[in-house]
Amino acid sequence: MPVRARYTYLGPEGTFSEVALRTLPEAADAELIPSSSVTAALDAVRCGAATGALVPIENSVEGAVTTTLDELATGQPLMIHREVVLPISFALLVRPGTQMDDVKTVTGHPVAQAQVRRWLATHLPHAEWESAASNAEGARLVRDGRFDCAFAGAFAARTYGLEALVTDINDVAGATTRFVLLGRPGRISAPSRADKTSAVVWLAHNHPGALLELLQEWAVRGVNLLRIESRPTGEGLGQYCFSFDAEGHAGDRRVAEALMGLFRLCPKVRFLGSYPRAGESVPRQRTAPADPEFTRAADWLARCLDGREAA
Amino acid sequence: MPVRARYTYLGPEGTFSEVALRTLPEAADAELIPSSSVTAALDAVRCGAATGALVPIENSVEGAVTTTLDELATGQPLMIHREVVLPISFALLVRPGTQMDDVKTVTGHPVAQAQVRRWLATHLPHAEWESAASNAEGARLVRDGRFDCAFAGAFAARTYGLEALVTDINDVAGATTRFVLLGRPGRISAPSRADKTSAVVWLAHNHPGALLELLQEWAVRGVNLLRIESRPTGEGLGQYCFSFDAEGHAGDRRVAEALMGLFRLCPKVRFLGSYPRAGESVPRQRTAPADPEFTRAADWLARCLDGREAA
Amino acid sequence: MPVRARYTYLGPEGTFSEVALRTLPEAADAELIPSSSVTAALDAVRCGAATGALVPIENSVEGAVTTTLDELATGQPLMIHREVVLPISFALLVRPGTQMDDVKTVTGHPVAQAQVRRWLATHLPHAEWESAASNAEGARLVRDGRFDCAFAGAFAARTYGLEALVTDINDVAGATTRFVLLGRPGRISAPSRADKTSAVVWLAHNHPGALLELLQEWAVRGVNLLRIESRPTGEGLGQYCFSFDAEGHAGDRRVAEALMGLFRLCPKVRFLGSYPRAGESVPRQRTAPADPEFTRAADWLARCLDGREAA
Amino acid sequence: MPVRARYTYLGPEGTFSEVALRTLPEAADAELIPSSSVTAALDAVRCGAATGALVPIENSVEGAVTTTLDELATGQPLMIHREVVLPISFALLVRPGTQMDDVKTVTGHPVAQAQVRRWLATHLPHAEWESAASNAEGARLVRDGRFDCAFAGAFAARTYGLEALVTDINDVAGATTRFVLLGRPGRISAPSRADKTSAVVWLAHNHPGALLELLQEWAVRGVNLLRIESRPTGEGLGQYCFSFDAEGHAGDRRVAEALMGLFRLCPKVRFLGSYPRAGESVPRQRTAPADPEFTRAADWLARCLDGREAA
Repeated sequence: MPVRARYTYLGPEGTFSEVALRTLPEAADAELIPSSSVTAALDAVRCGAATGALVPIENSVEGAVTTTLDELATGQPLMIHREVVLPISFALLVRPGTQMDDVKTVTGHPVAQAQVRRWLATHLPHAEWESAASNAEGARLVRDGRFDCAFAGAFAARTYGLEALVTDINDVAGATTRFVLLGRPGRISAPSRADKTSAVVWLAHNHPGALLELLQEWAVRGVNLLRIESRPTGEGLGQYCFSFDAEGHAGDRRVAEALMGLFRLCPKVRFLGSYPRAGESVPRQRTAPADPEFTRAADWLARCLDGREAA
Repeated sequence: MPVRARYTYLGPEGTFSEVALRTLPEAADAELIPSSSVTAALDAVRCGAATGALVPIENSVEGAVTTTLDELATGQPLMIHREVVLPISFALLVRPGTQMDDVKTVTGHPVAQAQVRRWLATHLPHAEWESAASNAEGARLVRDGRFDCAFAGAFAARTYGLEALVTDINDVAGATTRFVLLGRPGRISAPSRADKTSAVVWLAHNHPGALLELLQEWAVRGVNLLRIESRPTGEGLGQYCFSFDAEGHAGDRRVAEALMGLFRLCPKVRFLGSYPRAGESVPRQRTAPADPEFTRAADWLARCLDGREAA
Repeated sequence: MPVRARYTYLGPEGTFSEVALRTLPEAADAELIPSSSVTAALDAVRCGAATGALVPIENSVEGAVTTTLDELATGQPLMIHREVVLPISFALLVRPGTQMDDVKTVTGHPVAQAQVRRWLATHLPHAEWESAASNAEGARLVRDGRFDCAFAGAFAARTYGLEALVTDINDVAGATTRFVLLGRPGRISAPSRADKTSAVVWLAHNHPGALLELLQEWAVRGVNLLRIESRPTGEGLGQYCFSFDAEGHAGDRRVAEALMGLFRLCPKVRFLGSYPRAGESVPRQRTAPADPEFTRAADWLARCLDGREAA
Repeated sequence: MPVRARYTYLGPEGTFSEVALRTLPEAADAELIPSSSVTAALDAVRCGAATGALVPIENSVEGAVTTTLDELATGQPLMIHREVVLPISFALLVRPGTQMDDVKTVTGHPVAQAQVRRWLATHLPHAEWESAASNAEGARLVRDGRFDCAFAGAFAARTYGLEALVTDINDVAGATTRFVLLGRPGRISAPSRADKTSAVVWLAHNHPGALLELLQEWAVRGVNLLRIESRPTGEGLGQYCFSFDAEGHAGDRRVAEALMGLFRLCPKVRFLGSYPRAGESVPRQRTAPADPEFTRAADWLARCLDGREAA
């Protein structure tokens, strides 16, 4: 009897992470298990208790989920196999029967707070906010009577026996969160229509131009950087590593050259994987009409070395 | 009768922010008022209720304090007048008489959690963590009996009638937090022995090389960037602005040239001020033997234009 | 009685240099004197015997006139006050009565030879070539019976009592030569509709990226380089200085910044002047919608330093 | 009976080119034939009349030999197989019996003239100079009585029955000329202890930053450019191609990557070969501890793609 794959996600049940995980074909027949934190989810993968973990990595309003970035940079190595982009809006979840006028205390994850701040100031100016470890945890606390209401995804209402008093709350229209499916390091998947490559690099200390050189490695090969994020290395203020996503697949000649360039340039590089790009801004066509240029250049050079090229 | 200056800080009383503020001469005779959040502190300055606000901006372990960066980038303009760097370590605060074995629940700010995670796993592996809005707020909750203990600065014990069961807790030796004193925009102060200049820039959309060009504006003038941080603009994933600190004072010719270069290059730049550098890594001598080079170059060009230069 | 200005040119009478000089308003009432070489012409200016000297600097087919470049780089300093661009085509000058079949020997300047090589191979395949010091000198040698014919400008026929057997000879259609009017160093003239700035720089030895940095000084300020020419410094193979022309006037803020950048970057820079651009490719409008950008940037910075800027 | 290889050189007999050719092992048993010009020498190779041609390409005082550069750039393709660097000094050759006081006329190649100008001004201030097509040709003209003396290599005296009145004349101590041995395109030779790679590139018109990008292709791969020379394309003033030499062999990974980068960047690239470096400044060790870095980077990337790398 085949063993079912087991995936974990940033729980508890009813989080956006769970919703994101359920959009993936891998999750269809798998066992899905909530973890109490990003670190717990990743550790479950590291120790083999789960095949993969789905956790948030970036929000279009709040920015990076630093725990995820830091775990990828400095924890036991993992690889990004997938990304999922979800539009994010919040519902105000209450125990059945609660009205707006009854609300004295509000909870939710700090990221949610940032996205509903203006709404709160307008509609519940006197409610007292206290943060919860996750939106779903906030919903649980409402169920248990600790708070009057919680901001969470509308889908969490059913899990906790609550109802959505207001839906589609978000100060910033079009807010989205990007999630990644992490697994143990393994052979990267074949290129898709449009891919992304992620890595973390540590620059040489006391080398002011190092970041510039890092960017030039990409620019010279015509590869776009989609995201770059500095993170402290923990060795003191002013010491950073850089986490980034580049357009393309590590098997693309141009991306491969740039990665090798980083390896030569930097004291340390950690490759985080190549995986299909998600989201609306992805080109319909294969990103890189790219590699043909590299192939033509390699052919030309081979002809030059053989004396077959006469320009 | 002269009016006393009034400064606010990220409260409540007993936070590291208060300690940082008290290191400044400005605070000596001033009235010091806690604010309940970074945003509240900054709004107090914006509306004129306070002369300045001292808030954390960056931690050597946890990285940027994103609320502070985002308020500086997109809120009503403020200027950085000072920075303070404090070594950070935590004490485990308890109600008098509490022993380690009594501890079932722990609280503290999420940033503190990140810095004591390993300590907790070793010494209180079964304690349940719940985040508080600030470390001092955590101390207050312990006083009120809501939690058994809180991580906070040892100095907060007295404020809340608690005692420090353990002190000097920090997973990472040498952790520090950088705080900034923010005020309303005004004439920047004269150059000191060693200064720093901060700004936020928005890059042109769909211009892959824009970040590279931004760095080149600094590199060409020989100015080191001390920090660069990407933040989402809120307009969707993949749209970032960059907050940075450069070495030197905006009145230095080299820094001025680079800032003007950014102004020409970028659709939007927000200048955040020039102020004395804090911290141990600061050079004893004026940073820039710098400007003499610029002065000599300007003199040379003037002689060229006049025909007085004969190389 | 006012003293007439005296200009010299690369002679003898009847050279393209003389024609180029006569296109300038300065030459209208001046005394025009041929010099026997570029060096002699420039020395006449240096010692005060002439106000200015008109000599060729670059040909669209043959490239740089290296004597002129080297004199400007290493001789006693001179400044470029003007440039003239002339279309160049040659006439085959003979003593009256000479026919094509009579021609056994041909002379002319080596640069002329390069431009009529194919014509010679087709029309006078058996004629023996010997170089002359200038085209006009070649014409003189034909007059004196030393050669049967010479390539020179058609205008030289009259000077030497010759006739043009064939005209409009040039292997490359549209060939042009650029001449410069050199004078002693003095205050540079005011900006015109479209200007050019010339200089020579010596790069630091053993600094492989120095040329790249030189180009970045221009690129970062958005200034186009119109010409760059390496010349040996005479200190051994592999040691070069670079002579270049940039778009714009040294009084333009962007050009001034770049020149000062070179001064800081390079062990030696020699400024050669700013002067009106000649030739058809010159924009009708002032080159640099440029300086307004610089002015706006300077205004912005001033407002920032004063606290008057609120982005 | 085996056919002897046949090499040609810039003649006539007794030129520095002949001396340079005789330093090569290839020349030991070969038939050596003078050509009347650089173009004639190269055409002899192109049509198969000679295996190779040795011609000057660069002088440490006078700079590039533009005919050689232009033939390599635009003539039917040839490849550089070798380079020879010769110290250059001149002898004053006279018919036996001539004394300094007898000298009224002097000849020599224009490049020689440039290198003896100061000597002439000091020792023969009244002698009249007329250029010859080559130094050896000048010697021949002295033999034939047309001039009183000629500047040429001392070795040319015997060829023309002259004697060296003065030797070791050179205004610039340490002057050298670089010669190249050109052959038809063929498989490039294996890397030696220290190699050089030459090419010519045409930049995209109306792309001001193109030269900068060209240099970045080399800089990013850590390859030094040893020489870069602009030459007019013949399409009008302001249109240049660039001829350059880079350190290393086209089979070196770093050089190969840079060449392919140029191929992608530029509308046209002509590869001119990889060949052993000559001259005193050549490192004793293989230039590039280089390729090991590239090999390590490629190994690292392969491990990443396979999931075998755990940083």
